Amino acid sequence: MKVEVMHDAFEKNRAVADQTRALLNGHGVRAFNLMGAPGCGKTALLEAVLPELLKRHGCAVLEGDPATTLDAERIAAVGVPVMQLVTDGCCHLEPNFVRNALQRLDLSGVRLLFIENVGNLVCPANFDIGEHHRLVVLSVTEGTDKAAKYPGMFSTADAVVISKTDLLPYCDFDPAAATRFIRRANQRAAVLEVSARTRRGMGALVEWIEGQLAPPPGQGPAPASAGR
Amino acid sequence: MKVEVMHDAFEKNRAVADQTRALLNGHGVRAFNLMGAPGCGKTALLEAVLPELLKRHGCAVLEGDPATTLDAERIAAVGVPVMQLVTDGCCHLEPNFVRNALQRLDLSGVRLLFIENVGNLVCPANFDIGEHHRLVVLSVTEGTDKAAKYPGMFSTADAVVISKTDLLPYCDFDPAAATRFIRRANQRAAVLEVSARTRRGMGALVEWIEGQLAPPPGQGPAPASAGR
Repeated sequence: MKVEVMHDAFEKNRAVADQTRALLNGHGVRAFNLMGAPGCGKTALLEAVLPELLKRHGCAVLEGDPATTLDAERIAAVGVPVMQLVTDGCCHLEPNFVRNALQRLDLSGVRLLFIENVGNLVCPANFDIGEHHRLVVLSVTEGTDKAAKYPGMFSTADAVVISKTDLLPYCDFDPAAATRFIRRANQRAAVLEVSARTRRGMGALVEWIEGQLAPPPGQGPAPASAGR
Repeated sequence: MKVEVMHDAFEKNRAVADQTRALLNGHGVRAFNLMGAPGCGKTALLEAVLPELLKRHGCAVLEGDPATTLDAERIAAVGVPVMQLVTDGCCHLEPNFVRNALQRLDLSGVRLLFIENVGNLVCPANFDIGEHHRLVVLSVTEGTDKAAKYPGMFSTADAVVISKTDLLPYCDFDPAAATRFIRRANQRAAVLEVSARTRRGMGALVEWIEGQLAPPPGQGPAPASAGR
């Protein structure tokens, strides 16, 4: 006799994430789960790309943090609708937190939704929060070896953004070696080098983001990452 | 009638941590739990202070990482006994992992044990792994606001080490404002500014570490952090 096994928490989370994706797909919204270590420059990256993306697309942002509304205030200053998701100390965004937040966010006209996760190179990788794509940010000051040490996070990325490249002259970071470590964890992710300060590489990042954009509802299927 | 409540996992963890501390106290060893975000410079800090500490004290290191033995190799190169604790993707060191590792580490002659936790500003703060003191590292490239966003971690520190100060000229980091955020989370922690590269502040850090050192067994009680 076959024994049926249910992994309740994970199945429930997956169902919630699928509800979120269905809601987003219904509005023609592509969602990006932005992950990386604390202080790797996730918010600075959004501040850098949003003004460019806003010229052509409606954008919205969910900001995850264990405490404070500091990041949401920075995004609001760019003129983008934003909601701060305060996890009260939790190490990642939960799927139902994102789903519930989206009930209160006006998605009409929005084509791109960025969800900035809690700064953490481990736990957020284990939670599908209903995104279509995953962007993992690695700043050059963190060191060449991070993808080797945190393969779980890097293995799930659709794009790895190597950030703060303006600091390369002052660090021991080796971009070629770092990319080799990323490739061991992940063969398919795009790897982009950027600096929010000098705007180096920002055009390519904007292009990559727009390349994931769904056609308007009813005009055929959107490109999607494997399994999402 | 009084209802007795047991929080099994936490009580078990606490008991394991107490076993670890008893073992360390029996050997006259002071243990430091070194925490901070991925790439904040925890291992570089150890590489910088260990040669100085080794002149006067026996030292040993436990290196925690989700994957790889890269950090243990760096510590071994300094000539310090070291064991790599690979968590296989787990986001923090578990108390029983540390206790079991110490069964296999020769503690004779060791006075200072450094336990480098997984790079993570959230989860490791919730686990007493049997240390006497907590060192939290914050690199200037992570940004001024980290203690505000991750108060749980900073509230438990006995010392906060602001690292990579050689990069201050190239960052927006404001040490005075960062210290104010640290103080909101923690009134009592020492706050030290260091650069492993230029060795600025390393003397004060070595002094702080030696200030926590227990007198040899039988020569009176050691100074200890509140509750540990």
